[in-house]
Amino acid sequence: MNSSIMDYDVLKPHEECGVFGIYSDGDVSPAYATYNGLLALQHRGQESCGIAVCDRGVVSYSKDMGLVTEAFNDKILDSLKGQMAVGHVRYSTSGGSVRENAQPLVMRYIKGTLAIAHNGNLTNAYELHRVLERRGCIFQTTIDTEVIAYMIARERVDAPSIEEAVRRAIPKLQGSFSLVIMSPQKLIAARDPHGFRPLCIGKIGNSTVFASETCALDACGAEFVRDVEPGEVVVVDQDGMRSFRDPVDVEKSLCIFEYIYFARTDSIIDGISVYEARKQAGRLLAKQLPVEADMVIGVPESGIDAAIGYSEESGIPYEKGIVKNTYIGRTFIKPSQSERERSVRIKLNALSNCVKGKRIVMLDDSIVRGTTSARIVSMLKDAGAKEVHLRISSPPFLWPCYYGTDIPSKDDLIACQYSIEEIGKMSFADSIAFLSVENLAKIMGSRKGYCDACFSGKYPAPIPDYLIANKDYDYSTPIKRL
Amino acid sequence: MNSSIMDYDVLKPHEECGVFGIYSDGDVSPAYATYNGLLALQHRGQESCGIAVCDRGVVSYSKDMGLVTEAFNDKILDSLKGQMAVGHVRYSTSGGSVRENAQPLVMRYIKGTLAIAHNGNLTNAYELHRVLERRGCIFQTTIDTEVIAYMIARERVDAPSIEEAVRRAIPKLQGSFSLVIMSPQKLIAARDPHGFRPLCIGKIGNSTVFASETCALDACGAEFVRDVEPGEVVVVDQDGMRSFRDPVDVEKSLCIFEYIYFARTDSIIDGISVYEARKQAGRLLAKQLPVEADMVIGVPESGIDAAIGYSEESGIPYEKGIVKNTYIGRTFIKPSQSERERSVRIKLNALSNCVKGKRIVMLDDSIVRGTTSARIVSMLKDAGAKEVHLRISSPPFLWPCYYGTDIPSKDDLIACQYSIEEIGKMSFADSIAFLSVENLAKIMGSRKGYCDACFSGKYPAPIPDYLIANKDYDYSTPIKRL
Amino acid sequence: MNSSIMDYDVLKPHEECGVFGIYSDGDVSPAYATYNGLLALQHRGQESCGIAVCDRGVVSYSKDMGLVTEAFNDKILDSLKGQMAVGHVRYSTSGGSVRENAQPLVMRYIKGTLAIAHNGNLTNAYELHRVLERRGCIFQTTIDTEVIAYMIARERVDAPSIEEAVRRAIPKLQGSFSLVIMSPQKLIAARDPHGFRPLCIGKIGNSTVFASETCALDACGAEFVRDVEPGEVVVVDQDGMRSFRDPVDVEKSLCIFEYIYFARTDSIIDGISVYEARKQAGRLLAKQLPVEADMVIGVPESGIDAAIGYSEESGIPYEKGIVKNTYIGRTFIKPSQSERERSVRIKLNALSNCVKGKRIVMLDDSIVRGTTSARIVSMLKDAGAKEVHLRISSPPFLWPCYYGTDIPSKDDLIACQYSIEEIGKMSFADSIAFLSVENLAKIMGSRKGYCDACFSGKYPAPIPDYLIANKDYDYSTPIKRL
Amino acid sequence: MNSSIMDYDVLKPHEECGVFGIYSDGDVSPAYATYNGLLALQHRGQESCGIAVCDRGVVSYSKDMGLVTEAFNDKILDSLKGQMAVGHVRYSTSGGSVRENAQPLVMRYIKGTLAIAHNGNLTNAYELHRVLERRGCIFQTTIDTEVIAYMIARERVDAPSIEEAVRRAIPKLQGSFSLVIMSPQKLIAARDPHGFRPLCIGKIGNSTVFASETCALDACGAEFVRDVEPGEVVVVDQDGMRSFRDPVDVEKSLCIFEYIYFARTDSIIDGISVYEARKQAGRLLAKQLPVEADMVIGVPESGIDAAIGYSEESGIPYEKGIVKNTYIGRTFIKPSQSERERSVRIKLNALSNCVKGKRIVMLDDSIVRGTTSARIVSMLKDAGAKEVHLRISSPPFLWPCYYGTDIPSKDDLIACQYSIEEIGKMSFADSIAFLSVENLAKIMGSRKGYCDACFSGKYPAPIPDYLIANKDYDYSTPIKRL
Repeated sequence: MNSSIMDYDVLKPHEECGVFGIYSDGDVSPAYATYNGLLALQHRGQESCGIAVCDRGVVSYSKDMGLVTEAFNDKILDSLKGQMAVGHVRYSTSGGSVRENAQPLVMRYIKGTLAIAHNGNLTNAYELHRVLERRGCIFQTTIDTEVIAYMIARERVDAPSIEEAVRRAIPKLQGSFSLVIMSPQKLIAARDPHGFRPLCIGKIGNSTVFASETCALDACGAEFVRDVEPGEVVVVDQDGMRSFRDPVDVEKSLCIFEYIYFARTDSIIDGISVYEARKQAGRLLAKQLPVEADMVIGVPESGIDAAIGYSEESGIPYEKGIVKNTYIGRTFIKPSQSERERSVRIKLNALSNCVKGKRIVMLDDSIVRGTTSARIVSMLKDAGAKEVHLRISSPPFLWPCYYGTDIPSKDDLIACQYSIEEIGKMSFADSIAFLSVENLAKIMGSRKGYCDACFSGKYPAPIPDYLIANKDYDYSTPIKRL
Repeated sequence: MNSSIMDYDVLKPHEECGVFGIYSDGDVSPAYATYNGLLALQHRGQESCGIAVCDRGVVSYSKDMGLVTEAFNDKILDSLKGQMAVGHVRYSTSGGSVRENAQPLVMRYIKGTLAIAHNGNLTNAYELHRVLERRGCIFQTTIDTEVIAYMIARERVDAPSIEEAVRRAIPKLQGSFSLVIMSPQKLIAARDPHGFRPLCIGKIGNSTVFASETCALDACGAEFVRDVEPGEVVVVDQDGMRSFRDPVDVEKSLCIFEYIYFARTDSIIDGISVYEARKQAGRLLAKQLPVEADMVIGVPESGIDAAIGYSEESGIPYEKGIVKNTYIGRTFIKPSQSERERSVRIKLNALSNCVKGKRIVMLDDSIVRGTTSARIVSMLKDAGAKEVHLRISSPPFLWPCYYGTDIPSKDDLIACQYSIEEIGKMSFADSIAFLSVENLAKIMGSRKGYCDACFSGKYPAPIPDYLIANKDYDYSTPIKRL
Repeated sequence: MNSSIMDYDVLKPHEECGVFGIYSDGDVSPAYATYNGLLALQHRGQESCGIAVCDRGVVSYSKDMGLVTEAFNDKILDSLKGQMAVGHVRYSTSGGSVRENAQPLVMRYIKGTLAIAHNGNLTNAYELHRVLERRGCIFQTTIDTEVIAYMIARERVDAPSIEEAVRRAIPKLQGSFSLVIMSPQKLIAARDPHGFRPLCIGKIGNSTVFASETCALDACGAEFVRDVEPGEVVVVDQDGMRSFRDPVDVEKSLCIFEYIYFARTDSIIDGISVYEARKQAGRLLAKQLPVEADMVIGVPESGIDAAIGYSEESGIPYEKGIVKNTYIGRTFIKPSQSERERSVRIKLNALSNCVKGKRIVMLDDSIVRGTTSARIVSMLKDAGAKEVHLRISSPPFLWPCYYGTDIPSKDDLIACQYSIEEIGKMSFADSIAFLSVENLAKIMGSRKGYCDACFSGKYPAPIPDYLIANKDYDYSTPIKRL
Repeated sequence: MNSSIMDYDVLKPHEECGVFGIYSDGDVSPAYATYNGLLALQHRGQESCGIAVCDRGVVSYSKDMGLVTEAFNDKILDSLKGQMAVGHVRYSTSGGSVRENAQPLVMRYIKGTLAIAHNGNLTNAYELHRVLERRGCIFQTTIDTEVIAYMIARERVDAPSIEEAVRRAIPKLQGSFSLVIMSPQKLIAARDPHGFRPLCIGKIGNSTVFASETCALDACGAEFVRDVEPGEVVVVDQDGMRSFRDPVDVEKSLCIFEYIYFARTDSIIDGISVYEARKQAGRLLAKQLPVEADMVIGVPESGIDAAIGYSEESGIPYEKGIVKNTYIGRTFIKPSQSERERSVRIKLNALSNCVKGKRIVMLDDSIVRGTTSARIVSMLKDAGAKEVHLRISSPPFLWPCYYGTDIPSKDDLIACQYSIEEIGKMSFADSIAFLSVENLAKIMGSRKGYCDACFSGKYPAPIPDYLIANKDYDYSTPIKRL
């Protein structure tokens, strides 16, 4: 009687990483605070995670594949003693899915040990890689973080301090990067001049925290202080917090898809509530293409916020409509094709009694390949829904992302191949609407300075030709760690 | 700025088990169908799980601690070949949390191999245990299922068939049991005469499926046929499906807490939609004690359905209000007491922008000890909520449950110690209301025949004195498996 | 230049089990003593192991697949507190290789909890099984130990004590059994009336130890006291040690292959040193068929003792000749057939410089299928040996064993198919000799009372026809635990 | 009655590493051949191991902590496809015991991917490290191999080929190194100009193999061709094998302790049989200090060969005397001090019947701290030995080793603190003799060119002052990987 959907999450765009750092005044355990912070950032990367601590200049760390709850236990955390910590959760967009690529990257350089956690994607990694190799450098991972580490280590040979080395390295790095760096004595946060990826500052008493999102501050008991500004370098040490920011000729370009899908709904990024932005997208959709219907539902979890906003604007009642099995994580056994065609219902299921005979507005956050939407609409119709009107709380993806998400190349984007009407038909929906690019501009209220290149093609930072030709250009000869 | 709650799920009442069985016509893989079914029943037990298959009389099985996705992979499932399967997910209410106690219980008896999956709790297990021991029986587990196995095996010495043995054993078993039993040639489902626990029948083409809830039928692609009736024994073999039911002098007594909390919201039990029953509880609460407020929210996940119903009845807008971290399963590291008091926010977090300055009606499903509610209300107030009105979609727990859930003895039930007003104050709520026992009777519409003993003290089946004196009376000398 | 052999150990006959028990006076940790004892008995079974302890009547236990060092760590041992312990190492000859079959078998019976460790094989298990099933018994394992448990539990209903129940059960059990049994208050050792398997008593101060071999006494710091006599039941409790022995009309029949191969060379069984018996076999072989040669070598490890004896008697120098890779345990990756034919050298390797151009007498303990001997002789010849004279320190296997070892049925015994001369040729040996049955009688000096049925066909206890027809007759419908 | 010894292996000196490489003609699987080779080299390192393969320029690898049989299975090996492979087993003398330090070190440099396996110890690692750091290099491990990788990568910027880069790097490296290096097209073996560590060449048909010892050639079915010469660079590619060797002004200095203890008894190093060298040491000891005795025994495993030689020379019969429990690997639970003093017998056990009342000559390979010898002698005396005459098949350790073994600094060497007579008394031996330095020179026959610095203090290559002051000088700030 009901229907359902598989592989739902797998087909969503993925964020690359989440970063966290803490400089403790002694009242807070850096390792436990980082653990709690990483738990709250887990949605930004579920492939691997790691924590490095620094105890009077001596760095200890633990990194592993898997979720934070899988990779750490109290025995490990208890052994990670120190005054500072830096943590990382990772989903691989570039660089393979291997243990070596887990972060933070811990290494020794001229001034001792450095631990670096990085969220983002360099667009000039290939050029930097070639330059470094020609100077005899060796690379043991395939992550951009190692390139950043070299750039900082080389600057540090002449620079008077680690923060000055970071400052000098920044202009040589192109693309997106939100960094947390732990030197023997200092904790440093840095955000690329465009501010593509979020990064914020919090306080637990006199301890300073850096995190990708404010939800991680909440999770470790920190008060939000402010966001790290694009191009800013923030340093904390025993003398307190200082900040450097070189004037640059670029506009702020925060990834707008953070609001639509990537960030957690309880985070506040650069002053805007993610939940409110999502509800606003729903309200705007309700005005953009009104429809008569009996209920509004959202595809869990990300479509729900927009559905609540749509219901509020349209007056059509909000209902649950679809239930998600939260016990199924990343790994469950895929059915064979034949089983798939018999529509095995595992990850999502329709509430048949609720939807039977009803005209439904269904909110989802985005469409990449289109197959998922088609399956969910079919599931609702199999369960007896009379009409399903599909509303997408973002514009159609038309351009790949080079700044740290895995929005794919045009060949894999359904909106590059088909018209919106065709996508609607392929989805079995009775009507379809994407949030217009104009309305997208309104989800953050009057705020400007965002990157919507995946929708508009307006890339705020230049993309090398070879990347345009091959989005997943890999500067490294493949090294496969089994 | 926000607040949150820990150990949230741990303090909820727990269902004991979920059962599943399939007799395949050859078009369906019994092991994979059972795997999919158990995934959908995972909310009924996350401690251990198992699948047994029967291939022309030869039984293979695999059981392990942990979630279904952890205990099984395609290699294991591929090796579980056969024409029938029986599966089980377990949460231990009685019998320790050890590998030996995982189900299905597979054993050899006079007629070959038997696999038994059991949901429920015998109230005369102690008496049966003593009788059996006095006849030289040995017990290798501490689960009631082993007692049931002995009772059936002993009847089978004289009974002409396994189904007749099950039929003869039923009158000797007191308490709750929904059973799926696999003999070398037959698959049998049986439900105790009170029908305390749910059990339903489905069809995938010509294959027959038994499951605790209809959501498991959906997950394996089966159509719902009907519920197994209280006291009914249903047999499937190569000659098709047959049913036996001895007249008994007891009323149907389905556990009403299945609707309020235990069952999955997309299941339909004994003809009533769980989602609709939960929304109805919300609507009834809105009428029972109206309040002026700006928004209605639900404590995820189970409070959300009632919140939607409350919003519908009251006209007060539904909002998300609280977000749950779904990456945190059963195991995350508990903070020390001092960290707990600093209110570490991990599992749940308030949407501060959403709740700030607002008067909130918050729906939750039940209150056992009261500490959880207090923490959530505090979290909302810390996040700026102006008022929090607590509405509970069930009456106060006043009596322990002996029929297969872990609703504890009176000493641990806050409602046995304090008045409703006191509970409200202890919860920091501005007002509090529990669904009245009269309204509880209306959540299933006009349907009768349920057990609400935990609220009313009216136990439909007799409870031995030693159980009343000690709810967790354990008939076995403790055996600890490390 | 050298050659070597694979799968060497796999093709050897296997002992079924080792048992251990301790009743502590409080100065010795029963769990740690048992751990040390089991380490020393590991050669008797490497498939699974377990330890159960009893703390004032409450039994805790831990069992797992694998070696003792793999299955236990200090955290587990620390949690196994108590006054008594019983331990077991297992190699499966009957009953599958599954977790459920690990011992000690811990179960509850009429008088509390019982833990049983068993070494041996019942020849009437099938009959007992049928009788018990007809009385409604259920079986959850496929090991004889469960049958023994039932027999004792049933006797205990009427018997005044556990030791009396054991005593009454013994006459009903046929075949071999060395048992250590832990009841809530007592530790009991029992050996079958034939005394097929060894069992000895030791003391650590006032603590009493039972073990399969004296090497386990050495390992836990115990002094040897005496062997348990065939048919004897020894009980230890707070009142000290007592012994019962019913007169029986059978002769002692200790398995003589314990001396030749199964037991550890440093053990002393029923008064005879295993090392001395093996050396004596070598000396007797030197007299039985003298040969001119340059060196004597032994196939590691068991052939070395006989080689030392042969060298002593013949005056031909002892050399190492072959080295064994001790880092390779049970699990290493098998080469494909083609690689095998290219004679991959992994487990054993010849010392080429040592054997080149030499006439060699090579001692091995036994020949089952003959393939191993052929490979070792070939390896030596490939390494340049001029002559290889094969000497086997036991007679040819002509009869299967039903008393607890896996000496197979006649179809798999090369000596049942071929003459000794043919075996010699098939082994590429320049000459071959097996220890004669007459000389076998002399390896224990003047001692009598052993079982040599595998060589002589003289079975000291009757074997049912269905076992003769099918050595591996399995009374249970196969239950496969994955 | 018997006694025994613990922690026996732990107190022995340790070799640092074993290396292996293969360039296949297509008939041999490089991964499986490397697996077999590493199994045979396991005695050179049990801490971690790894295999890297190269498939048309693309490198895959797998490394892990633990034994070869633990770290690899057929699934991993099957996935390691390619034309070449390099493998490594490691025991850490310098660089911590962490996953990052496992070898082969795989990295990308200017010409693609490089995999390096290294046995040895650089004495100028600190200087090189500082120079590289000052040029902006970063270090992710604490092993010398990373320094070597940088040195080669930097030379390769200008050198016309990888082999030329290796050749140019060699003069800049001081200390010991036997290297196997895999570039995208070539397999390269190189040995330091002193030839401290062994390295040999073999052939399987047209496939070329490099290995630390000949026993690894045997294990993978290769024929021995020759040793790599000190200072030689051997290259194999599709054009066959070529060799380079720059004239250097140093003498060959093979570590003589390879013969005494490190190498496997079936290996032939630089033309000398290890077994023969050990027997020769035994013979020389018999002549050096004759004694009247009833039997000669060897401490397993390394003392046995010398015991056989001693028996041969003296005419005193060889006996086993002591048995070693081969099921106990690196990890077994250590008893508390009190248990140790009660002389728990686990790893070694005396054959009491064999040694009782006898005058025994006991051969052991070396004495580091002296505690082990004392325990073994005590164990024999506890078992009834009348006299124990201790004979050590090497001279007293008087100087630490800086060339890749963990022979410790003088503070930990008993022979630096006490006279030989005193050591004899502390060992409870009735007499004691070490092989004299003069006799040591004779164990390799007339061969010259070895390093005996640990006995003589004559270091063939210069040792920096800071290393003399602190043998375990660590150039890296500690990085701890948990």
